[in-house]
Amino acid sequence: MKLYGYWRSSSSWRVRIALNHKGVKYEYVAVNLIKDGGEQYKADYQSKNPMSQVPVLEWEEGGQTKRLAQSMAIIEYLDDTIPNPPILPKDAFLRAQTRMVAEIVNSGIQPLQNAAVLKKVKELSGGVEHSDANWAREWLERGLRGMETSVKPLAGKYCIGDAVTLPDFYLVPQMYSARRFKVDLAPFPTLARIDAALCELPAFKLAHADNQPDTPPAEKK
Amino acid sequence: MKLYGYWRSSSSWRVRIALNHKGVKYEYVAVNLIKDGGEQYKADYQSKNPMSQVPVLEWEEGGQTKRLAQSMAIIEYLDDTIPNPPILPKDAFLRAQTRMVAEIVNSGIQPLQNAAVLKKVKELSGGVEHSDANWAREWLERGLRGMETSVKPLAGKYCIGDAVTLPDFYLVPQMYSARRFKVDLAPFPTLARIDAALCELPAFKLAHADNQPDTPPAEKK
Repeated sequence: MKLYGYWRSSSSWRVRIALNHKGVKYEYVAVNLIKDGGEQYKADYQSKNPMSQVPVLEWEEGGQTKRLAQSMAIIEYLDDTIPNPPILPKDAFLRAQTRMVAEIVNSGIQPLQNAAVLKKVKELSGGVEHSDANWAREWLERGLRGMETSVKPLAGKYCIGDAVTLPDFYLVPQMYSARRFKVDLAPFPTLARIDAALCELPAFKLAHADNQPDTPPAEKK
Repeated sequence: MKLYGYWRSSSSWRVRIALNHKGVKYEYVAVNLIKDGGEQYKADYQSKNPMSQVPVLEWEEGGQTKRLAQSMAIIEYLDDTIPNPPILPKDAFLRAQTRMVAEIVNSGIQPLQNAAVLKKVKELSGGVEHSDANWAREWLERGLRGMETSVKPLAGKYCIGDAVTLPDFYLVPQMYSARRFKVDLAPFPTLARIDAALCELPAFKLAHADNQPDTPPAEKK
């Protein structure tokens, strides 16, 4: 499988974790979202994803090239086709709560602080300093507040009990982004504790933005 | 089941369609997102959803009050517990493509034009006229362009072939929103055709924003 991604894109990062967690070997193809206005807007990439976003997962099957975009669709596909280890609980209500927590990040927080949106916010504010960072911080704080309260009664070692599940893939990149935008994490002790525990796991370590083929040398750790 | 919603919230609307489509009778509880700064920010509602968003689905089961937020989690739950009529294809890859198209709206378009975001955009632009509507229109146009291209090869009568599936619940409220923000729909003939066909179905008619208990009289049709 080929994964088109960008080192710091949280959507790409979620899928890297999921692939590692499911034991899928993949080839990483870096798409530079910044250089020359963004490789994602080039015709070649748009033919892979008309939304001009990373990630895209691509593979050959039955003589056909198959492609998927959208982290949630990709990760649910991986879970449908590679059931072990499971990443959704068997109980229907708990499974729904698991998806709910992942969606708090997926549709509730991350879309408001992606690179294209921040660029637009900067333009709109007429160059007011830190307007984009302040915007990101405000939505991150609102979202993490709701997430902390939602996760607390469900959490064990990780977001949902003691097994790694779907929202764990969403939490780690989101917490990285919160630190990047200098969000005070003290009000989110449950999320901070889970994030730290997840970052010890091999699947999460391998997927980390600090260590991808396209991580700029100055950002490598 | 009780659905906490708002007539024009597209996330509430999606769940109304899904409940109707699955044949679930529900009690509708209107949450006024506008009045007095928004009922969703009151402590009573926040105890139901810490994200202060609609919808929330609530029901009693085994002596417990159960609640779910996030349209995607709610609708997947309905499909898990009420399998007929199915809203996801059986083939794993087609099922993933179905979720992908729904996510284009859920995380790719709608979060950028919800009421809280538009309010913030207006503040940020220092009162420049139509700044919020222009912002909404730009993200809607970008998103619908990507969606038109993604849906075209998959569509039949509806988004995915000839049966009603998950993304159909997302498309109709999004197209309503596009018209509200005066997006030219001519470049999206596939989406416009599917939207019109869906709006003829009873489950979609019943759920329409034009005819909810909390639709303001001036907006009723």
